[in-house]
Amino acid sequence: MVLPIDLLEVSLNRDISLLLKDGRILNGKLIGYDQYMNLVLDDAREEKEGGEKRLGRVVVRGSNVVSIAIV
Amino acid sequence: MVLPIDLLEVSLNRDISLLLKDGRILNGKLIGYDQYMNLVLDDAREEKEGGEKRLGRVVVRGSNVVSIAIV
Amino acid sequence: MVLPIDLLEVSLNRDISLLLKDGRILNGKLIGYDQYMNLVLDDAREEKEGGEKRLGRVVVRGSNVVSIAIV
Amino acid sequence: MVLPIDLLEVSLNRDISLLLKDGRILNGKLIGYDQYMNLVLDDAREEKEGGEKRLGRVVVRGSNVVSIAIV
Amino acid sequence: MVLPIDLLEVSLNRDISLLLKDGRILNGKLIGYDQYMNLVLDDAREEKEGGEKRLGRVVVRGSNVVSIAIV
Amino acid sequence: MVLPIDLLEVSLNRDISLLLKDGRILNGKLIGYDQYMNLVLDDAREEKEGGEKRLGRVVVRGSNVVSIAIV
Amino acid sequence: MVLPIDLLEVSLNRDISLLLKDGRILNGKLIGYDQYMNLVLDDAREEKEGGEKRLGRVVVRGSNVVSIAIV
Repeated sequence: MVLPIDLLEVSLNRDISLLLKDGRILNGKLIGYDQYMNLVLDDAREEKEGGEKRLGRVVVRGSNVVSIAIV
Repeated sequence: MVLPIDLLEVSLNRDISLLLKDGRILNGKLIGYDQYMNLVLDDAREEKEGGEKRLGRVVVRGSNVVSIAIV
Repeated sequence: MVLPIDLLEVSLNRDISLLLKDGRILNGKLIGYDQYMNLVLDDAREEKEGGEKRLGRVVVRGSNVVSIAIV
Repeated sequence: MVLPIDLLEVSLNRDISLLLKDGRILNGKLIGYDQYMNLVLDDAREEKEGGEKRLGRVVVRGSNVVSIAIV
Repeated sequence: MVLPIDLLEVSLNRDISLLLKDGRILNGKLIGYDQYMNLVLDDAREEKEGGEKRLGRVVVRGSNVVSIAIV
Repeated sequence: MVLPIDLLEVSLNRDISLLLKDGRILNGKLIGYDQYMNLVLDDAREEKEGGEKRLGRVVVRGSNVVSIAIV
Repeated sequence: MVLPIDLLEVSLNRDISLLLKDGRILNGKLIGYDQYMNLVLDDAREEKEGGEKRLGRVVVRGSNVVSIAIV
């Protein structure tokens, strides 16, 4: 049994890919989270048609996250 | 009487199919969950027209899940 | 006075028809529920134009349910 | 001062008309409710263009209700 | 300082105009409310193009209310 | 450090401009609020193409507010 | 491990860029926040096609925020 929060813990400092409710995809290195699944990404990039938009360090609200893939 | 959380428990390590609020369908092996019905899938694949997109290990937020079918 | 949760209790092992927020209709036998109105259906079928899609045993999140009709 | 829950209490066994978030209108006899304003309707009918669809006995989730009119 | 709930209290038995999340406008006399801002209107009328629809006595769920204007 | 609730406190009796979730813009004098950021506006006006609609004294539900600008 | 709330703390008096649920982008200097991630921005500007709209000092409701980028 892998608790969701445990998977986040072992994914610290690894690359993850987030699918957000509005369909956006954010990629970056997971460097933090809290019990609401608010996430902190380092070197975050938003996937865009024909490229990506660099966002730097970002907080992503857990309530807007659909899924978190460990890359 | 089968409690929803009990059905998740007996479905560990089995294939499930998730319908998400935005209409996406995710398939994969259930390897964990918590009391909010956040789920951990292994070998997750998103159904796409003409194929599927491999996602690997993912956390899916329970608040975005419409239904969980035991395959 | 019929409490909503009491109607679920007496509907165990009976066929119900769910209207979901996204307009989908799911039919099946109610075999479980919890206090959030998460439901467990057996032999679930989604109504589709020109037929139905068989889903087997499913958990349906209560937060996505609009109404539950006792068939 | 008429508390919303008190109006439900005195409306038991009377016909009500529900407006739901998705614009549907459900009519029926109120036979139960709980503190979340989940409702139980008997002989429920959904208003449709050119007629109505008979639903029988239904639980309606309070979170999907916009307004409850006492007929 | 006028607390929102205090404005409701002094508006009892006065006409109010509600803007709902789906854009509907309901007018009527406020005869009750609770701490969730669920409201009870008497002689409620929904504004419609070219007229109004009479609804009688209604409970309006606070979670669907955008604003309450004291007429 | 300016706590959000403190900014509301010092903005009492000043003009504010609200952006609501549905895109509406409401202007008026802030005369009250509570811990849910429900707001009371005096002399409220909704911005409309080609003018504004006068609403008088209104309660605005905090859950529908996107941002509050101090004018 | 960087907790989301800690990243806000070290970002005080720095420029941030907010992505809101409705797709708007707000830029400004973070001067406050609370435990709900309600934020206070100074010199806030909304990105618009062909320019920006100056908003001054604003409270942004945390429930409408998708992501917070530290510029």
